[in-house]
Amino acid sequence: MARISDSGAMPLTILAEHFAKLPGIGMKTAQRLAYFVMSMSEEDAKAFAEAIVNAKKTVHACSVCQNLTDKDVCPICSDLGRDHSTICVVEGPKDVSAFERTREYKGVYHVLHGLISPIDGVTPDKLRITELLKRISEGEVNEVIMATNPTPEGEATAMYISKLLKPLGIKVTRLAFGLPVGAILEYADEVTLYKALENRNEI
Amino acid sequence: MARISDSGAMPLTILAEHFAKLPGIGMKTAQRLAYFVMSMSEEDAKAFAEAIVNAKKTVHACSVCQNLTDKDVCPICSDLGRDHSTICVVEGPKDVSAFERTREYKGVYHVLHGLISPIDGVTPDKLRITELLKRISEGEVNEVIMATNPTPEGEATAMYISKLLKPLGIKVTRLAFGLPVGAILEYADEVTLYKALENRNEI
Repeated sequence: MARISDSGAMPLTILAEHFAKLPGIGMKTAQRLAYFVMSMSEEDAKAFAEAIVNAKKTVHACSVCQNLTDKDVCPICSDLGRDHSTICVVEGPKDVSAFERTREYKGVYHVLHGLISPIDGVTPDKLRITELLKRISEGEVNEVIMATNPTPEGEATAMYISKLLKPLGIKVTRLAFGLPVGAILEYADEVTLYKALENRNEI
Repeated sequence: MARISDSGAMPLTILAEHFAKLPGIGMKTAQRLAYFVMSMSEEDAKAFAEAIVNAKKTVHACSVCQNLTDKDVCPICSDLGRDHSTICVVEGPKDVSAFERTREYKGVYHVLHGLISPIDGVTPDKLRITELLKRISEGEVNEVIMATNPTPEGEATAMYISKLLKPLGIKVTRLAFGLPVGAILEYADEVTLYKALENRNEI
């Protein structure tokens, strides 16, 4: 992460250093982006700057599912056409977008805003688990799908939450693991291949 | 280039579309960057937005060399320790940064802000050539180094300007072809760039 220069630095350098703080953007790309801003119209540059401040100011967590929204309740939670008895629990807002792109899931979501990871100081109380329990205690929930990543942190979080929900008589499911569609068997890693074998279905 | 959504769109989508207008940033990366802005402190987001507006507002062309600066005359042109009788003519501000990284060039620059390219509608009058001629007529200039990219447009521009300067009795040189033909100057490594500068030839 680049250090922001003191006030004596050139405005272009300061802007480049701001770009370099974004994930996946190195100093060379950041400079290129800063020069690109120079080629934008003053109007466009202002609109860009306003979009940053505006997004930061107006976007917050949905009071139901904790996904990012500029409304009190997000469009998914306020959609009466969706199945509110099925909750898909995900790590972050990006995962909601990924599921929405499938156009197949008709239930609702719950965004944890992280995964349990004691090494990084992320304990269960840092996640939106209390909000999930509150939702379940209030509404008619039949099924909770644990849709965290198949990583150690994702697995641990799924396990932790399922242990909290089981005593409440809630059906807790986990995403299926196997070969990704279009994958080449030869290049699949051992664990994926083992999961695919273990979870084999009759055809 | 992404279209900016109407005012009814979510602020996060609007921000992502602004990011997607930057060169080399697709919609998926743009969304990731927009989500990252959400994780920034309100203070940092404001500083980022201000850096954009501030750079756009205060940075303009140096009255001497046409490079981008927030002063009337840029630090290189106002540095009395540099050799003002040698002018290195480059396409853009990025090229000045590239030469400065070699730490070997002690002369000054002239930024054309483009290359002659009739297909793209860039005729010689669109470049800062008049400003270069004015500089030469006013000051004690011994040598002009044509340091445009070794591309057809770069070569054409170098040829065009050298033909204008030769009658004035100015020594015009060209970067040595230590650079691989078709390369982009901005990404050349320091040693190659220094070799190209050292082996420059009179044209």
